[in-house]
Amino acid sequence: MPVSRNFKSDNVTPVCDAIMQAIQAANTGTADSYGADGCTEALSSKACEIFGTEVAIFPVATGTAANALALSHCVPPYGAVYCYEAAHIATDEGGAPEFFTGGAKLIGLPAPDGKISSQQVADAVALALDLGVHHVKPSAVSITQATEWGTVYSMAEVSAIAAVARRHGLRMHMDGARFANALVNLGCSPAEATWQCGIDVLSLGATKNGALCAEAVVFFDPAQAQDFERRRKRAGHLWSKLRFASAQWLAYFAGGLWLDNARHANAMAAALARGLQTLRGAQLLQSVDANEVFVALPEATVAALEKAGFGFYRWPGCPTPPAVAIRLVTSYATTLASVEDLVAAAERCG
Amino acid sequence: MPVSRNFKSDNVTPVCDAIMQAIQAANTGTADSYGADGCTEALSSKACEIFGTEVAIFPVATGTAANALALSHCVPPYGAVYCYEAAHIATDEGGAPEFFTGGAKLIGLPAPDGKISSQQVADAVALALDLGVHHVKPSAVSITQATEWGTVYSMAEVSAIAAVARRHGLRMHMDGARFANALVNLGCSPAEATWQCGIDVLSLGATKNGALCAEAVVFFDPAQAQDFERRRKRAGHLWSKLRFASAQWLAYFAGGLWLDNARHANAMAAALARGLQTLRGAQLLQSVDANEVFVALPEATVAALEKAGFGFYRWPGCPTPPAVAIRLVTSYATTLASVEDLVAAAERCG
Amino acid sequence: MPVSRNFKSDNVTPVCDAIMQAIQAANTGTADSYGADGCTEALSSKACEIFGTEVAIFPVATGTAANALALSHCVPPYGAVYCYEAAHIATDEGGAPEFFTGGAKLIGLPAPDGKISSQQVADAVALALDLGVHHVKPSAVSITQATEWGTVYSMAEVSAIAAVARRHGLRMHMDGARFANALVNLGCSPAEATWQCGIDVLSLGATKNGALCAEAVVFFDPAQAQDFERRRKRAGHLWSKLRFASAQWLAYFAGGLWLDNARHANAMAAALARGLQTLRGAQLLQSVDANEVFVALPEATVAALEKAGFGFYRWPGCPTPPAVAIRLVTSYATTLASVEDLVAAAERCG
Amino acid sequence: MPVSRNFKSDNVTPVCDAIMQAIQAANTGTADSYGADGCTEALSSKACEIFGTEVAIFPVATGTAANALALSHCVPPYGAVYCYEAAHIATDEGGAPEFFTGGAKLIGLPAPDGKISSQQVADAVALALDLGVHHVKPSAVSITQATEWGTVYSMAEVSAIAAVARRHGLRMHMDGARFANALVNLGCSPAEATWQCGIDVLSLGATKNGALCAEAVVFFDPAQAQDFERRRKRAGHLWSKLRFASAQWLAYFAGGLWLDNARHANAMAAALARGLQTLRGAQLLQSVDANEVFVALPEATVAALEKAGFGFYRWPGCPTPPAVAIRLVTSYATTLASVEDLVAAAERCG
Repeated sequence: MPVSRNFKSDNVTPVCDAIMQAIQAANTGTADSYGADGCTEALSSKACEIFGTEVAIFPVATGTAANALALSHCVPPYGAVYCYEAAHIATDEGGAPEFFTGGAKLIGLPAPDGKISSQQVADAVALALDLGVHHVKPSAVSITQATEWGTVYSMAEVSAIAAVARRHGLRMHMDGARFANALVNLGCSPAEATWQCGIDVLSLGATKNGALCAEAVVFFDPAQAQDFERRRKRAGHLWSKLRFASAQWLAYFAGGLWLDNARHANAMAAALARGLQTLRGAQLLQSVDANEVFVALPEATVAALEKAGFGFYRWPGCPTPPAVAIRLVTSYATTLASVEDLVAAAERCG
Repeated sequence: MPVSRNFKSDNVTPVCDAIMQAIQAANTGTADSYGADGCTEALSSKACEIFGTEVAIFPVATGTAANALALSHCVPPYGAVYCYEAAHIATDEGGAPEFFTGGAKLIGLPAPDGKISSQQVADAVALALDLGVHHVKPSAVSITQATEWGTVYSMAEVSAIAAVARRHGLRMHMDGARFANALVNLGCSPAEATWQCGIDVLSLGATKNGALCAEAVVFFDPAQAQDFERRRKRAGHLWSKLRFASAQWLAYFAGGLWLDNARHANAMAAALARGLQTLRGAQLLQSVDANEVFVALPEATVAALEKAGFGFYRWPGCPTPPAVAIRLVTSYATTLASVEDLVAAAERCG
Repeated sequence: MPVSRNFKSDNVTPVCDAIMQAIQAANTGTADSYGADGCTEALSSKACEIFGTEVAIFPVATGTAANALALSHCVPPYGAVYCYEAAHIATDEGGAPEFFTGGAKLIGLPAPDGKISSQQVADAVALALDLGVHHVKPSAVSITQATEWGTVYSMAEVSAIAAVARRHGLRMHMDGARFANALVNLGCSPAEATWQCGIDVLSLGATKNGALCAEAVVFFDPAQAQDFERRRKRAGHLWSKLRFASAQWLAYFAGGLWLDNARHANAMAAALARGLQTLRGAQLLQSVDANEVFVALPEATVAALEKAGFGFYRWPGCPTPPAVAIRLVTSYATTLASVEDLVAAAERCG
Repeated sequence: MPVSRNFKSDNVTPVCDAIMQAIQAANTGTADSYGADGCTEALSSKACEIFGTEVAIFPVATGTAANALALSHCVPPYGAVYCYEAAHIATDEGGAPEFFTGGAKLIGLPAPDGKISSQQVADAVALALDLGVHHVKPSAVSITQATEWGTVYSMAEVSAIAAVARRHGLRMHMDGARFANALVNLGCSPAEATWQCGIDVLSLGATKNGALCAEAVVFFDPAQAQDFERRRKRAGHLWSKLRFASAQWLAYFAGGLWLDNARHANAMAAALARGLQTLRGAQLLQSVDANEVFVALPEATVAALEKAGFGFYRWPGCPTPPAVAIRLVTSYATTLASVEDLVAAAERCG
């Protein structure tokens, strides 16, 4: 499917040029395996610079691996992780967090916009503490930034949750599969969006934002990363030719590529939202803070878009039937022309 | 380190040209994620053609993942896997098999050349059955082909082990991180080397033989692969942009590249062995069947090679001290000139 | 605390005389360990007689062990178990099901009376199947009989859930910590209440109903119990002197002791409910089908009962504040006089 | 089988009178469940008194549970436990340590008398550290006291191993299924035999030495026991009527019953050894330090003993075929007459 018609997801995109060139550039001579190469060393430094503090960064192959590994290092097997009830870790990772943690329990909290609140976490922890040894032990909170609904937590919201977590000795995990999209929305620094808000460990994604296969776990206190290497290895996520993962990351950060890509994707989503919301019968279902648009449209409009060859998903749980909810995802590769095409196609049958 | 001096491992090599070009060629337009792309579909067909039967193939990021996932699908958590006591799965994967299987036990058998025998397996199974419920349940055998000592099991040897396994209901796993090297040594077809010898599941490696990041699990009876998809997903080994893994595999198989690469690597190892064994005080420690040379040399020779900038590992357990055992690994990228250089350097100080 | 004042739980009770005598009677001479003793053999036969079919029964130390072991044998690590959202397995077993299954996921369904419906299960399975490999695999349903709210599923309700389960290849598990209490309420045979309704595996409890330490897993198709012995052993639940567990079970079943004990406990709960519901401001919160009474009472009444030395728990979630919900549990050891005492004490301050 | 003929194991014995009486004595009135009862509180104090320091003690149902739980609390899932290659944890617990630890690896060391040495541990740790992230992480040592061969580590031997462990940050676990037998052999205090030798955590068994079902985990630094409660609960080893386990322990310790029982058992083994070693063709295979005798006898003698109705096991690995190795186990319930009977029967056919 041509990029111009495909709004299914940001993971259907090709690799952006700068990153593909970096992969080729890394392909010279031999390099020590398992991360003892120049690219990986450079990445370690670069990550510290990006986050404005000493961090430990570990590339892995997928976001699922990043999330599950990160959680497994924060939570004992008898622990509880509090998250949004339809968080990616809870519903879309095939039980990876439970596998990697040795059976820890994800406790889902409801949230219409995908953002859980500090009060919800506080209440859930209190309930667990009441049950004592008969219940799992409150151990971590995981939030998704940007969320599964394309919304973005404010720094104040994150800080409030982190304060509750800290009070009870819980670790704060952020699923940042679309972290860059959240960051440009917040308009703050990577440091401000993470450790300065109380985040302990970040799953950082690049694949949806232009990379080939580049996800990573970032610890903001390297001491907390002790032995994490061992977890990555035994999960089969330590590449022998790691230079080819690290090279992607270096290109991703170089010259602010990651932010440019995310800014563009967000702008395309905003343009899409602006265009669609004026249609008769259209209703935006969530605030468009990042690169996803959830919108309810008349069935006829949705069918027409499908017939016209646009790619996107119908989404369950439309609040205003018989309208139909759909999800449209933009990316670094989405063009303004393709957005205008889609809006025009929707208008024609509106 | 230049390729010409680096005999440390075959995983220090760059990506071979055809594979890198295939990655770039796959980078056009959008493609459905998680394997619903054209490359991955083509790979499924290609793998059936290569192995001469209906197979199910699943790309993953590392050999550790391939081995551990394969075993986890063959063995219950209360099961036993019989293998060589210093098999890669037993000593070099950070406990991945135990993690993925939920705690199954690897039972190591001694073997000076890395090849366990059918009699050893039969004896170990008999012992376990005697102990009944108090012991782990015999469930699988795992053999490495080519072995950790650069030797290759004959088809008769594999068949004999598989016969014991079948008699007791055990599955046969082959760790084929260097399968291509074994295959060209045997001079048989992929089918003859695997399922026709009784292998149920193969961990097939390409990374050491020219790929960027391409390992795979191959089931020779697709029915045995049921739900394997779910295991791969929850281990974080289902890439979203899977086309870039599959494209490597297609190029690997195309025009027999994998066999050419392996044949070259094996020839370089043979040349190295020939050159070194004539040196005074040199002793080949293992049959050089694939692309690894284990040789005992005088300490002075080893030190001289190190000083000359050649990369390789000193290996523990030299049978003839004060000689020193070293391991030299060749690859698709090793040149005859570099082999001759090394031998000449060794001769100079011999 | 004297039995006469203690309504905290049925697990605070002493051991009933017949069972204690059976333990002593088993204490003669040596007996082969790990279940190869006469008591355990007799139990196997007795269980088949009780359930009117060939069953496989495995004594273990706790209900948590019984539930978690049973589920681990029905569900792969990547599986989902559907249950009531506040089921004992979900909230009160410290994550044991997740541990024993290797990380399977409990998916909680809401149910005001603790009884999930076949429609809820059907909907949840449909959702999971839609998500495919990204979600956990529907694998089992677990229902509690009698429920956590002292209610009892009708045979028709169980059968309807089992029909959905069978349609999708899910196993049916029943947590029967208070199975005897449910059975006498239903007035049917053990066979009718279990396998004839579609139950595959039962966690059967005796400890709350008069035993010292006697819980068991019962498979209604012995073929499904294959290798279960190994799971019990590796969980540390195969007692060396198993005769002392089996002897409890034989006494429990002998002469219908288990039914007599349960009938008495249920009658005491009914009497308690009758007595309390006439009080001003009292409201029964659930149907009293077994041996638990959930009732809302004025705060003053509750405080007065506490002051008078009655043991019970305040229960969260009272639907009619400022009234207070409490839970009262009766047992084989509860006397009518103690029930009357409690009601009278409540009346005095009513 | 009458006690007088049964030398199969010390777990075939009945419960000794004092312990059975204690169980009955505990059966009065209600008691709070899950350990909040008077017996369990008294046990906590008693254990501190016995071990001469502040300890944390946790009763569980089996020795397998005690060992696996103890190890799971000392070792990360990516950890290694060093032990004798045929230790009970390695060969006779159905993989429980691997299950409870989430896949940690037991690394077996050879030892003809069941006693591993500090040098062996030091060498194995050094090897592991060399392999780094590719290998499991050295995390604990487990020794069995008395050993699987009826021998007893001296305090100096234990201290030497513990010194190596401490140097590398490994925890020291002692499998004390027959701890009392070792203790009376050593003639030292429980403190001297454990924490004063560097033991961190002890699996303490009473079942083989007169109890019904009483094993326990003892931590010598209560801080190391943090959250252990949660592990016990989620393994299904927190009894609801825990008073009946704790009562056994109180009786076991009262008036030195445990030491008297063990002293008697050891004396019976010594008498057996003395009697048998004078027979023609007899050869003691191990030092008889505790309550087990491993002896090689002529086949005819062994067959005659079997025919005479004596219970014992033929043991694999006799060093002097065609003689046959057998294992004879004595207990608190073994009588001198039964020992003399057995020796006399052996003499008759000698």
